[in-house]
Amino acid sequence: MRMIGNWRSAAAFRVRIALNLKGLPFEETFIDLDAGDQHAPGFRAINPQGAVPAFFDGDGPALTQSLAILDYLEETHPEPALLPREPKARARARSLAQAVACDSHPLYVPRVRHYLTDDLGLPREAMQAWLRHWFGTGLATLEARLTGEPGTGRYCQGDAVSHADLCLVSLWVGTAIFGVDTAPYPTVRRIAEDCLSQDAFARAHPTRQPGAPA
Amino acid sequence: MRMIGNWRSAAAFRVRIALNLKGLPFEETFIDLDAGDQHAPGFRAINPQGAVPAFFDGDGPALTQSLAILDYLEETHPEPALLPREPKARARARSLAQAVACDSHPLYVPRVRHYLTDDLGLPREAMQAWLRHWFGTGLATLEARLTGEPGTGRYCQGDAVSHADLCLVSLWVGTAIFGVDTAPYPTVRRIAEDCLSQDAFARAHPTRQPGAPA
Repeated sequence: MRMIGNWRSAAAFRVRIALNLKGLPFEETFIDLDAGDQHAPGFRAINPQGAVPAFFDGDGPALTQSLAILDYLEETHPEPALLPREPKARARARSLAQAVACDSHPLYVPRVRHYLTDDLGLPREAMQAWLRHWFGTGLATLEARLTGEPGTGRYCQGDAVSHADLCLVSLWVGTAIFGVDTAPYPTVRRIAEDCLSQDAFARAHPTRQPGAPA
Repeated sequence: MRMIGNWRSAAAFRVRIALNLKGLPFEETFIDLDAGDQHAPGFRAINPQGAVPAFFDGDGPALTQSLAILDYLEETHPEPALLPREPKARARARSLAQAVACDSHPLYVPRVRHYLTDDLGLPREAMQAWLRHWFGTGLATLEARLTGEPGTGRYCQGDAVSHADLCLVSLWVGTAIFGVDTAPYPTVRRIAEDCLSQDAFARAHPTRQPGAPA
């Protein structure tokens, strides 16, 4: 197995955690998103969307979109399971994962930040406010759901790690990068810190990948 | 089965199509997103994220996030299948669905449009440009992937309808609402028109739901 990623990519981080948890060896190549490597013709031929990660399992075209890759790994390497068996619990774990991966993260990726400043001419401070707003909205949604919905346990869904936790952690690590006040999100913090104390998560951490600032 | 939705919601549309294709009877209650019904305490108690659809199958809390609901329906009512069996084909169908549901749609939902105009003070024309840009980016991504990737057939993935087509159609119907030039997206058009000619899709169409303008 092989992946093209980037040290900072939250999406690549999620896949890296799953591979570690399932004990699957993989190689990762890192491209430079700030230099625009994702828009180079060579990479566009791999993923026309120009986004990481691009994942390869043997022959064939790249698999893309982190949640689709997580489901692929779950279906091809079911143990240890990263989704509950019971359908409604499974749906909740996926829903929490999507609250991060669909409704929060896509709002502050590089292409969106560039469009706001370069195309709409938004001042840098307004772009920063945008970023903090949607980042905070993602955290607030998780906190509200984790405290308000039955189903939360040691982890997002019950007492076993699931895709929801991988997404939660991929959001959480941004709080340090973006300097976000984490006080309003104690449940998110509790789960994130629990996960990040585990080797499979810690080894996958963005700051431990090639290309990360020292 | 029961759903709280809105005539215009692309996410509710996707779930409605799946229920029709699987022949599952359901009741849908429609709330008014323009009036802010999704932020009322009663609805927030159902979905703290304040978003539709909220889906109920018997007892228990609502299931949320359209893709999680689609997977739930697939797991609990496998026939007719709306995902291929082969893992890589399945991953590609999911990836195309997520290119719409994660990377395009969340960028122009009401909460984002309101933040741009009400909080960042963006002129209405700039907000419209934003909307057209990300809507067009979603269509362009689909067109590039459908023409460039092996796997495309009569539908997005091979010759059977999958979650990818449900998401493609949920994007496509916005072209009429937003007055978008569809000429650059002939493959998206071909698949969308094929799907929309089928009863299960046609009955689910936003303009045929209560609350839609005449």
